[in-house]
Amino acid sequence: VNKDININYPLWRLLARTRQAIYRARQKELLPYGVSMRTSAVLFSIINSPEEITPKMISQQLTLEYHSVSEHLKRMEKGGLIHRIKDKEWKNLIRIEVTAKGYEAYSNSIFHESTDAIMSVLTYEEKIELWRILYRLRSKAMEYLGIEETDVYPPSSPEEL
Amino acid sequence: VNKDININYPLWRLLARTRQAIYRARQKELLPYGVSMRTSAVLFSIINSPEEITPKMISQQLTLEYHSVSEHLKRMEKGGLIHRIKDKEWKNLIRIEVTAKGYEAYSNSIFHESTDAIMSVLTYEEKIELWRILYRLRSKAMEYLGIEETDVYPPSSPEEL
Repeated sequence: VNKDININYPLWRLLARTRQAIYRARQKELLPYGVSMRTSAVLFSIINSPEEITPKMISQQLTLEYHSVSEHLKRMEKGGLIHRIKDKEWKNLIRIEVTAKGYEAYSNSIFHESTDAIMSVLTYEEKIELWRILYRLRSKAMEYLGIEETDVYPPSSPEEL
Repeated sequence: VNKDININYPLWRLLARTRQAIYRARQKELLPYGVSMRTSAVLFSIINSPEEITPKMISQQLTLEYHSVSEHLKRMEKGGLIHRIKDKEWKNLIRIEVTAKGYEAYSNSIFHESTDAIMSVLTYEEKIELWRILYRLRSKAMEYLGIEETDVYPPSSPEEL
């Protein structure tokens, strides 16, 4: 291999296309439950957060713009999946409560048959190696964007899961 | 590490978030040129295709729905970046021609300072390893989706670049 050929761009395209293909498989799987990919990810963030989660924390965790998350949470409230509650002391602080319907949607969307089926092509050691490499890439990208890493999920190593 | 803990889902989340962070860095970089990420990717597919490319081939390469690509190509034609030409013999066949303005937009968006900066955190050997792993994941995901792999870019190994 001629190392002078820049493989960074094709490697980035491959990363983007791999993500897109797994995303579409997951979308296909979620279809019968009427839960979108984003709703499923937001519910996962809220329910699995070790501390009480705010819209700002969700936007950081999912690397989405604050206003997109904010709009999405309003739609989820309309859909009866969550309640958005203004803090009594700190009016700007929004607390989020998952409704029974929200928990049901979450438990319907928690199965990841597609993800498991696709990941099964890798050995456990390869998964650990992929984790290590992706974590470093992501940290570097966050640094490039000037975003502070307050994110707790996924952790730097699967041992911290 | 307890191997019973399923790392497939967090690994998938990490992949999705890494892609999202690199995507945002690239978006920030493209902003001054007025070229969207999708337009940049479509122009890259057209210009770097070894054979004459059709909307269907673009949708396969970028793992996007056919109708999304079709709509996007119409917008790109309105923006003066391409011409969509109906084949004289096969009326359903659309051939795509990049205009001078399209080539200019392409050459403006071809620099990948953000991607290079982020990828620089990996050694060459790690990049090759990441390529190998992602390629297998992507093939498996395509198989899951029942999509035939007619894609030629990125190839199965960087040696084929």
